[in-house]
Amino acid sequence: MKRKIFGFGLLTCLAFAALALTTSCGQPVSDIPLTTQEQPLPSWNKGSAKDSIVDFIARVTDPASPDFVPGPERVAVFDNDGTLWSEQPMYFQLIFAMDRVKALAGEHPEWQDQQPFKAALEGDMEALADAGKKGLIELLMVTHAGMTTREFETIASEWIATAKHPTTGRPYTEMVYQPMLELLEYLRANGFKTYIVSGGGIEFMRPWTEGVYGIPPEQVVGSAGELEFSLVEGVPTLTKTPGINFVDDKDGKPVGIHRFIGRRPIFAAGNSDGDLQMLQYTAPGDRMAFGLILHHDDGEREWAYDRDSHIGRLDVGLDEAPERGWTVISMKNDWSRIFPSPELP
Amino acid sequence: MKRKIFGFGLLTCLAFAALALTTSCGQPVSDIPLTTQEQPLPSWNKGSAKDSIVDFIARVTDPASPDFVPGPERVAVFDNDGTLWSEQPMYFQLIFAMDRVKALAGEHPEWQDQQPFKAALEGDMEALADAGKKGLIELLMVTHAGMTTREFETIASEWIATAKHPTTGRPYTEMVYQPMLELLEYLRANGFKTYIVSGGGIEFMRPWTEGVYGIPPEQVVGSAGELEFSLVEGVPTLTKTPGINFVDDKDGKPVGIHRFIGRRPIFAAGNSDGDLQMLQYTAPGDRMAFGLILHHDDGEREWAYDRDSHIGRLDVGLDEAPERGWTVISMKNDWSRIFPSPELP
Repeated sequence: MKRKIFGFGLLTCLAFAALALTTSCGQPVSDIPLTTQEQPLPSWNKGSAKDSIVDFIARVTDPASPDFVPGPERVAVFDNDGTLWSEQPMYFQLIFAMDRVKALAGEHPEWQDQQPFKAALEGDMEALADAGKKGLIELLMVTHAGMTTREFETIASEWIATAKHPTTGRPYTEMVYQPMLELLEYLRANGFKTYIVSGGGIEFMRPWTEGVYGIPPEQVVGSAGELEFSLVEGVPTLTKTPGINFVDDKDGKPVGIHRFIGRRPIFAAGNSDGDLQMLQYTAPGDRMAFGLILHHDDGEREWAYDRDSHIGRLDVGLDEAPERGWTVISMKNDWSRIFPSPELP
Repeated sequence: MKRKIFGFGLLTCLAFAALALTTSCGQPVSDIPLTTQEQPLPSWNKGSAKDSIVDFIARVTDPASPDFVPGPERVAVFDNDGTLWSEQPMYFQLIFAMDRVKALAGEHPEWQDQQPFKAALEGDMEALADAGKKGLIELLMVTHAGMTTREFETIASEWIATAKHPTTGRPYTEMVYQPMLELLEYLRANGFKTYIVSGGGIEFMRPWTEGVYGIPPEQVVGSAGELEFSLVEGVPTLTKTPGINFVDDKDGKPVGIHRFIGRRPIFAAGNSDGDLQMLQYTAPGDRMAFGLILHHDDGEREWAYDRDSHIGRLDVGLDEAPERGWTVISMKNDWSRIFPSPELP
């Protein structure tokens, strides 16, 4: 796929870092072929990357192995954007925010001439970037706060069920990585509890992660806004208020893991330098642990980007991988298939 | 037991509300007799309270019942202090904080003349109350922050393993309620996921809840302090800093439930007005749900207190229970046994 680069460096740094969001419910399970113990990871090509995963699982699950880890301590954490689903041409949650601005524009005629809303309405990413952090936060507050958690859950669920990716025309839930779905399943089949630990909004993800990834809402960690409890005509209600409680990115990821899970993972997967601290925290070298970095190097079937990218920049991670013993996955060479639907353009 | 009332109203309001804390590991499992499906809740006397629990479980687990709730949505939340273990003569975590001050006093000769430390060292609760909120926060910061999460985990684990209750002389982990242990087990045997949702510090509880209650660290929600990630000589480290991230009490309980679990519970148990909002949130009346209020009315075998108590005040909860349909449990009448060790004085 052709990679679209938008001139919004600031945005990319802030987009998810500032997303203030938290909820749950199930959704249609994708009919992907599941991995089996005999033939694990069918969409992974033979090679050292696949071997290292299979070898790790064998060691930590074999009670006779010195690296054996008891079931309850088998915690695996996955970044979401760029690790479980695509993140180009921009984080999907930012597209959601822009779509929300469009949906709300009828009630806000003033937005036609007012930034950052004008930029969002026109899809003008440069103007959106010019609006800076202040503009981005305005955009997020209007689209992610000032409503009940139930209302937001409904909005996010409807969007994920109907919205289409701007270049592939596919639903976003079809832009998840088939080999990662298999890896999640393989880990769970081996007694792991799989978690998402994402800079994205916890409330944006929870309504659909169970259906799409098999990860229930209570195993989703993400950035979170402030919430307010009240009785509205006797009905207990949680309202999303504009404050930001927690940014689950970079340094925040180990904090989120400790706060929400309370155990140190033995498996972590990410794709950008925003995942660096999570990878460091998972594999400090005092025991068997697996660090996985997904390298977006397939410009034909997905997008190719790393050190110079505004979105999903992967620079320090590539440098640290060899000394830390992290496994770098080449999407181009290690995966026989990218998405669940093989005919994706 | 004789109830000791200390003159520290302020303290009682603030003690756990201000405790800034978050961790994990297993500990010795108590050898309590477990409940069975045929003979559930053996330490509960026959009567309407026990019947209402058994009836509720039957309804939500029977696929043919109109009140059936699918397994993943069977979420049960329990307050800790006064609901799962005793909270007299004061919250046990406050005793822990005072014990920490004593342990650290050697390095701080100035504390001999400096409040609130002098009060903590002398066990002078009135003077401690006089130090007010500022004093309490000072006490908590000194005892709960300024160290790594691992260090705190070790300290909390050692305390819980060795400290003794001031009037019974028992380890605190023996001052848990046998009927509640049975209830937790009964719920789990019926497909429920059991959580603690406590105003107490999440890091104070996590090291021992799995061993004592069968509740793993990832199912403990509590008040939490700020954390900071850094590499200390290359080792990934989380440090507990003085800030408070989240107070999981009163209005904060539904917020904590939504943020950490992302599902609305169908079973909630509490014992004080600090649990009111959690009970309201669990049972808003639009579906089958169970609200349990534990009434401390047994001055012989435990402590008797409710509307006028500084600790564990239960006032509005008693008033709202009938209209909300909450079940009020009389410790005196509904429980044949209070603690796992029958010979507890």
